[in-house]
Amino acid sequence: LAELLSGLLDLSSRGDKALARQLTDKLRALITDGRLKSGERLPSSRTLARTLAISRNTVVQAIGQLESEGYLTISRSRRPVVGDSVASADAFTSGADARKRSPAFRLSPWAQHLGDAAWPPVYRGRPRAFQPGFADEREFPRHIWGRCLRQAAHRVRRHPRQGPNDPDLQQVLLKHLAVHRGVRAEPRQIMILPSAQAGLALVAKVLIRTGDVAWMESPGYGGAFAALRAAGATVCGLAVDRDGLKLAERRQAPRIIFVTPSHQYPTGCLMPISRRLDLLQFSNRTGAAIIEDDYDSEFHYDGRPVAALAGLDPSARVFYVGTFSKVMMADIRIGYLIVPEALVDAFELAQRHIGLLADMTMQAALAEFIERGAYRSHIRRMTRLYRSRRDRLVEALASEAGRHLSFDIPAGGMQLLARCKGAIDDVKLSLQLQAAGVITRPLSEMLYHRSSQRGLFLGFGAWNEAEIDAGARILGAHVRRS
Amino acid sequence: LAELLSGLLDLSSRGDKALARQLTDKLRALITDGRLKSGERLPSSRTLARTLAISRNTVVQAIGQLESEGYLTISRSRRPVVGDSVASADAFTSGADARKRSPAFRLSPWAQHLGDAAWPPVYRGRPRAFQPGFADEREFPRHIWGRCLRQAAHRVRRHPRQGPNDPDLQQVLLKHLAVHRGVRAEPRQIMILPSAQAGLALVAKVLIRTGDVAWMESPGYGGAFAALRAAGATVCGLAVDRDGLKLAERRQAPRIIFVTPSHQYPTGCLMPISRRLDLLQFSNRTGAAIIEDDYDSEFHYDGRPVAALAGLDPSARVFYVGTFSKVMMADIRIGYLIVPEALVDAFELAQRHIGLLADMTMQAALAEFIERGAYRSHIRRMTRLYRSRRDRLVEALASEAGRHLSFDIPAGGMQLLARCKGAIDDVKLSLQLQAAGVITRPLSEMLYHRSSQRGLFLGFGAWNEAEIDAGARILGAHVRRS
Repeated sequence: LAELLSGLLDLSSRGDKALARQLTDKLRALITDGRLKSGERLPSSRTLARTLAISRNTVVQAIGQLESEGYLTISRSRRPVVGDSVASADAFTSGADARKRSPAFRLSPWAQHLGDAAWPPVYRGRPRAFQPGFADEREFPRHIWGRCLRQAAHRVRRHPRQGPNDPDLQQVLLKHLAVHRGVRAEPRQIMILPSAQAGLALVAKVLIRTGDVAWMESPGYGGAFAALRAAGATVCGLAVDRDGLKLAERRQAPRIIFVTPSHQYPTGCLMPISRRLDLLQFSNRTGAAIIEDDYDSEFHYDGRPVAALAGLDPSARVFYVGTFSKVMMADIRIGYLIVPEALVDAFELAQRHIGLLADMTMQAALAEFIERGAYRSHIRRMTRLYRSRRDRLVEALASEAGRHLSFDIPAGGMQLLARCKGAIDDVKLSLQLQAAGVITRPLSEMLYHRSSQRGLFLGFGAWNEAEIDAGARILGAHVRRS
Repeated sequence: LAELLSGLLDLSSRGDKALARQLTDKLRALITDGRLKSGERLPSSRTLARTLAISRNTVVQAIGQLESEGYLTISRSRRPVVGDSVASADAFTSGADARKRSPAFRLSPWAQHLGDAAWPPVYRGRPRAFQPGFADEREFPRHIWGRCLRQAAHRVRRHPRQGPNDPDLQQVLLKHLAVHRGVRAEPRQIMILPSAQAGLALVAKVLIRTGDVAWMESPGYGGAFAALRAAGATVCGLAVDRDGLKLAERRQAPRIIFVTPSHQYPTGCLMPISRRLDLLQFSNRTGAAIIEDDYDSEFHYDGRPVAALAGLDPSARVFYVGTFSKVMMADIRIGYLIVPEALVDAFELAQRHIGLLADMTMQAALAEFIERGAYRSHIRRMTRLYRSRRDRLVEALASEAGRHLSFDIPAGGMQLLARCKGAIDDVKLSLQLQAAGVITRPLSEMLYHRSSQRGLFLGFGAWNEAEIDAGARILGAHVRRS
């Protein structure tokens, strides 16, 4: 009892409820740290209450709680007894020390090799010129977006929706894609997902059996490689030429072909109609599914954007992937996937089984944002802005590093691929640039076939002209030196 | 030329820009429907412009666009020529008809069997009493939440964050869980995910090799079965008794054990401390990871909630899963997963590779909601409300069907399991009830081992007392008849 009391005497009295909670915690601690041992019998609640000068009710509450947790049992004499095997708890409760002891984990083969992948590149600190993949968030109409969000949050629905995808968003998004990307589908074919990457992973998961072959462009998008690998595919990179992915006769037919026909990632080239039709015919003949990633295709500077594959043949095995994060801001993590009509039910189930749900308030706010025309007008405004930034970058690169870098002027998107004219180590160059405050992505890290291509991939959308000029000067100085 | 003109003559003139777009579309249609064939030569732009009585500039724009899309090439005489192999486009463009032709898909073994799973149950129409899993959204403080959202949307950050998880949310969420659930961890160990289900799927994906054994409670949570199966695990159901999961010696040690110790899903029982320690020791000895799903443990009616497994032994192989959707509303699709410190980097990479990102605005708004105390005070208010609804349901069930159903009064959560006293077909009963407007989940669909247990799983949180009474009357009438 002395032991017990010394552990309990410093109960501070701040109202009965707080007291019961304190008493519970103290008693539990006495048990877990071994001062009260298995089988030990506590005084009756009456005795405890009197000795501690607190109400008996408080003691009864605490003992009841510890009984429900299994720390105490009540003996026939109505006195609490410390439960069996709880003394061993001290093995687990050495606090901060214990946290250091880290158990060994056997990971899945996939997880074991996650660290080897060159994707995603991780940069510390804030994004800087020319880190690819970012929209200029400074230009985003936050006031309109905030209103859409609040409106969506306030809309009191009697009960939540049952499905994972908001029909309103499906409807307005499809309308937008039909007009601007030539997509033909029914609204219910659109799955709303936490990211475009989730869309790639989901298609792969639904279609790939371990060991199936998938084709992707090389150089190409590392995220596609990652998603296909996650599903167990053997990924082959096929070289791209000026018209994008070049089909090849290979020993093993692919189950999935990943392409970025609108402007190839990262080269920016456009796949012409003849090759698109070849691709669709190949898919028809072999049964291969096509993932069309329509990555940042909303921004087109020279002429109108070319219609999507998903519009050429609505009956084809085309899975169309897009995202809001490039158009609006990186923080908006909602992507979408259009699946063939025959697979809508399977994909909705797959979404639920692996938890790929997008927030409903966010979906409603996006529907409102599109419906109001704010989405379209933001795209229009950004297209003008990004075009002028593209021109600025092209000019700055030509003057700072024109003798060492060659590039095509991208007809759309937010990125430019500058190829090295000599045999430059682009990984080393990129690291030097990073140390100097300029972020670039080396082309050699985007290759998925044997190739000596070298270059730097530069994002120009998120930086203003002064930032572009400053970045280009640093870049030029390093390129000239290497 | 006559053919061409007849296809173009109905150009309506609504400004030059619209005209160029119309001309492009019409010309493309002439090519894709085969009226202009491969190799066919168009008149010069000058001739076309004159014949159609439109500006030459318009014609040049349209031809440039079609050239960039690959439909036309420009001959040496500067006259446009229809490109190779584009005539075959007509095979693909029969519109609505084509959409009906659905190609065959070979799905992955996992996807093929998605439809067989009893989870998730799908109910058409709006949710009704007693559909489990819903909070009462009518009670949610939308005005505060709306303010948090707008504030998060307006916060102009110079640039987006680089990581998938908001450090502010990690911090305040951990503080909440430490105080109320006894969780011990570092903020960076919390992964913010699109749903709790995504948390289950992610742990399974990182740890499971195809064929590994996973254990789960039976009766148990179908979502866990689905997530473990998705990763290739062989799932064994272990019977629960009044103290929750009962460990068993089996031939093959499990790689993962899924448990709901706070109140077992669906029986509602609490796992006492001695069994918790046994479980941790078993995990230590065998290397099995534990997924602790702390599902709706925020609501506790009789005494304080018991501390989580993740608090007993911070060095253990415990993965702690929770969600905001049960506390706030189903529309908020953000869950979280606490992983052992040694695996933080691997899990962040895994999050990115399969695209399990949660919206950053939503994360910031949640951080604000918790920080303001709104989260805690909503939980307190709902605890009082749900307790009274639990009491109401208990009372109504006892009087309407007390002779046919037995149940323990749940100490927490938003659900109650009513067991059938006789040999009732609970699936048939549940279907009858659904037809009568009352939703229940048959216990036999939640069993993962051979068992004759039958019953109905009822949610009481989302319905007011009148709805509970009405539902119970219907339920009682059907139960008495079967």
